[in-house]
Amino acid sequence: MIIGCLISGRGSNLEAILRAIERGTLTASVRIVISNRPDVPGLHHATSRAIETAVVRPADYADREDYDRALAQRLRTAGVDTVVLAGFDRIVTSALLHQFPNRVVNIHPALLPAFPGLHAQRQALQHGARITGVTVHLVDEQVDHGPILGQIAVAVREDDTEATLAARILEEEHRLFPAVLQRMADGRLHIDGRRVQGGLP
Amino acid sequence: MIIGCLISGRGSNLEAILRAIERGTLTASVRIVISNRPDVPGLHHATSRAIETAVVRPADYADREDYDRALAQRLRTAGVDTVVLAGFDRIVTSALLHQFPNRVVNIHPALLPAFPGLHAQRQALQHGARITGVTVHLVDEQVDHGPILGQIAVAVREDDTEATLAARILEEEHRLFPAVLQRMADGRLHIDGRRVQGGLP
Repeated sequence: MIIGCLISGRGSNLEAILRAIERGTLTASVRIVISNRPDVPGLHHATSRAIETAVVRPADYADREDYDRALAQRLRTAGVDTVVLAGFDRIVTSALLHQFPNRVVNIHPALLPAFPGLHAQRQALQHGARITGVTVHLVDEQVDHGPILGQIAVAVREDDTEATLAARILEEEHRLFPAVLQRMADGRLHIDGRRVQGGLP
Repeated sequence: MIIGCLISGRGSNLEAILRAIERGTLTASVRIVISNRPDVPGLHHATSRAIETAVVRPADYADREDYDRALAQRLRTAGVDTVVLAGFDRIVTSALLHQFPNRVVNIHPALLPAFPGLHAQRQALQHGARITGVTVHLVDEQVDHGPILGQIAVAVREDDTEATLAARILEEEHRLFPAVLQRMADGRLHIDGRRVQGGLP
């Protein structure tokens, strides 16, 4: 499985994926890392491993579709078959999705369909949820909506702040994302509408 | 804590509560069980223990508020301070809620805010959720919405049917409901907007 990773910031999930590959628990390679912002720390996870990087700036494109076509072209040129959104803070359109059907994967810090969108951890706290978690899912045209590949529950503690809750969820993100990608690499995921067989956990 | 229980069917959560009381793990008593339907099996859990029962038929009342006022009066007359909805299939209105502020408790077979409303287990399966669960919450004017008192996660299995999933969730309902009620009985729950301190788990 040849992964292209889209990031916007620190890229901690990218790092977790790279470490799983180095550890031998994920049989895949990351061929290119693209950021929509220049100079983000996450790019160093790639450059320190001699992985190709690119910064593709939205301002250089007419609209979302145009931007996504440029992303798709860079990913295709790099030989990517699977696109991993690892903290990519843009909504992707069908211009990208149609190039990689059922091969664009996102991670969200909540148990979808609960708490979609921004600040999922804050939403969970403000709602008074006692259980939240993390979801890895295929991306479709709706935000945080595509078929679910894996979920892990995380208990909310009564003294949690947004920061402490986010940190515990992030640990599970780093566990779940490589594990789900390995299922994809193994060809063990079978998508039947919204129901996925062979996922995790 | 003096409980009045509203049911519509088999009353398995009522039975779990009664057993917790008999076992000594819930220091409360159930004073009256009211059903909106005649002859439902759940009433036998009460009659076999010489607990007062009543059937209050919606058809005998002009509207929801009128019906709920009748319920509140029966509950008040029985000395109830806490109203437990144990598979009660009607929406309750402020006519009941205002009589028992922050003392009407419901159980829902999903991790709210995910999958509110009817057939929560079926919704979870159709959505392809890999984790669902059970929520005990205070009732407010919106459906399946009030402050959350306790939640337990339940993993969805890939071979689950609605029946097998509902059965596993039901086991957790029977565990969670008495445990949360015991926290209420102990006076350990503190409601601060939507966030509740002292809840379970």
